[in-house]
Amino acid sequence: MAKGSAGRARTLTYRASGVDVAARAEAVRALIEAARYRAPASHGAPVAASLGHYAGLLRLGSETIAVTTDTVGTKVLLAEQLGRWEEVGEDLVAANVNDLASVGARAAGLVDTILYGTASVATFRALGRGIRRGLARARCSLLGGETAQVGEIVRGIDLGGTAIGFFPRGRRPVLGERIRSGDVILGLRSDGFHANGYTLVRRLLDEQHVPLARRRPGADLPLGRELLVPTRTYTPASEALAEREGVHGFAHVSGGGVRNLLRLHDRVRFVLDRFPAPPGLFEWLGRLGRISGEEMYQTFNMGVGFAVVLAPSARRDALRRLARAGFSDALEIGHVEAGRGVELPTLGISYTGYA
Amino acid sequence: MAKGSAGRARTLTYRASGVDVAARAEAVRALIEAARYRAPASHGAPVAASLGHYAGLLRLGSETIAVTTDTVGTKVLLAEQLGRWEEVGEDLVAANVNDLASVGARAAGLVDTILYGTASVATFRALGRGIRRGLARARCSLLGGETAQVGEIVRGIDLGGTAIGFFPRGRRPVLGERIRSGDVILGLRSDGFHANGYTLVRRLLDEQHVPLARRRPGADLPLGRELLVPTRTYTPASEALAEREGVHGFAHVSGGGVRNLLRLHDRVRFVLDRFPAPPGLFEWLGRLGRISGEEMYQTFNMGVGFAVVLAPSARRDALRRLARAGFSDALEIGHVEAGRGVELPTLGISYTGYA
Repeated sequence: MAKGSAGRARTLTYRASGVDVAARAEAVRALIEAARYRAPASHGAPVAASLGHYAGLLRLGSETIAVTTDTVGTKVLLAEQLGRWEEVGEDLVAANVNDLASVGARAAGLVDTILYGTASVATFRALGRGIRRGLARARCSLLGGETAQVGEIVRGIDLGGTAIGFFPRGRRPVLGERIRSGDVILGLRSDGFHANGYTLVRRLLDEQHVPLARRRPGADLPLGRELLVPTRTYTPASEALAEREGVHGFAHVSGGGVRNLLRLHDRVRFVLDRFPAPPGLFEWLGRLGRISGEEMYQTFNMGVGFAVVLAPSARRDALRRLARAGFSDALEIGHVEAGRGVELPTLGISYTGYA
Repeated sequence: MAKGSAGRARTLTYRASGVDVAARAEAVRALIEAARYRAPASHGAPVAASLGHYAGLLRLGSETIAVTTDTVGTKVLLAEQLGRWEEVGEDLVAANVNDLASVGARAAGLVDTILYGTASVATFRALGRGIRRGLARARCSLLGGETAQVGEIVRGIDLGGTAIGFFPRGRRPVLGERIRSGDVILGLRSDGFHANGYTLVRRLLDEQHVPLARRRPGADLPLGRELLVPTRTYTPASEALAEREGVHGFAHVSGGGVRNLLRLHDRVRFVLDRFPAPPGLFEWLGRLGRISGEEMYQTFNMGVGFAVVLAPSARRDALRRLARAGFSDALEIGHVEAGRGVELPTLGISYTGYA
């Protein structure tokens, strides 16, 4: 079914909820095209292979640094509704350091950008506590930030950040170029929706009059609290594997869902033939909104928040190291074949490009 | 007069226009306090002296990098009114690289964060062109960015960025700690309001029904265009001086006006006894809004966008180098004395702290 079309058995898409992925992609292309500028080498040399990847890489003197930026998006509106800010403070850090983890960079520093109309000291303190928790998980320092009161632009609060990472001596960036047919794909469990897809989620709950205080069947927490659970931090997983022979790629499964794998390599086929059944929260939401599987897997992480692509010979050592780093939930979710795109064969779903 | 009070001869303050500097300072303190986390040295070592400065400094292996983040603020609303986006694209870069220039770091990379509700390809392309112009002036690479469609949070467009700089071999950060009594202060001309104080400016024009198409007396451009002129880029000035003996500090005169000097050193007195008469635009706005001098000089740059603090013995060489770098407008605007704060003696204005 075409995206955004409203058939009889009406399905909700990300686009219909107010986020037009295709239009955004065109606008972003126009911006990048127009902004193209080549700085002289004396001002640092961007690493070409990193453009369009999870983080931009820059060669400065004898070091390579990685830079990435992301916001919490509309999950903040849920935080506001519930009057709880610690969780999204942690998301702000995790969303960024997970992108550093996806190029194998060690998190070093974060700057935050908080835009707001009105906000209390209590709100800022709770945000700070959440940021602290995120920093501690990634072992990352807060380097500064910008707090701008711009009530004419922002309703509520917007949370963004930029994270800087580096490559310890002897470590090379892990960008996916060595991925090849026969590699296996490991998946690491997510903690709910992380910080992606909330425009769709909130729209759906609103339309169906589902109160945030209610528990969905089988849940331990009221829905609002369940939706607010912070993004899992994958820095320790990347740190455990980034220097291992045979580890070829990392993918933070953020906006774009499983399509994110295509950021690592666009001339292989990622076959997710052992993708685990999604947790109850995802199933419940999909049914509630009659959202197609295709839309679900390209919008949400579906229970797998981070993927590792590696040679089969590296699998055993990797699983052992992941378990020691706190990721004993890691499991094989697929493999790499010749071809292109991302495929979920048991669901009949296939994607050809990222975004 | 107390800030925000409305006497008979009503004066407009930044606070009354919707930006409460004192409340923001308290909230930011609460956040920073709660977010405090000390990462292990293996994850990079923040340079303590840089905290609260224009850029956070981080020691990574054999390099020190500088990171800073800033947004264009409510100037984007003016861009929207006029349907012109190149200027604020350039502001996005300049606001950030000027903060790098203030610690003597060479600009190397920028990531942008664009939040929007709806936006056309043409708007994004114009933004891209402006970003390119800013990058070229600072000789800085675009490393990546985040473009988030969040119409429920943002009205129009918000433009933010984070810039990364470094210190070429042999250069030390210029943080102001060597500033001492007897130093002289050079000022570099600004190009209008840059990207600060626009909440106040716009509120004032609105209240007084001043159309953007009108020219103020003595102006070459209609007011809207005059207000949209992009932030001047001071990177070449900092590059020309950062390695010179006797150059002790740089200050980008951004939000907070001349108070920004206090970010360099809080136990000396910056005496601006030769501050030039502000350009017509500032005079005109101050009269229009009956804004006190105290408020004007702590909100706007008043014609001086960047200051250099240096030993008198370094003055001649510095002025020569600045002229070669395109800043033949540089002139002495004051000196440093024993004491504390920032003083404009001819105006009877004195400030004791930053923000």
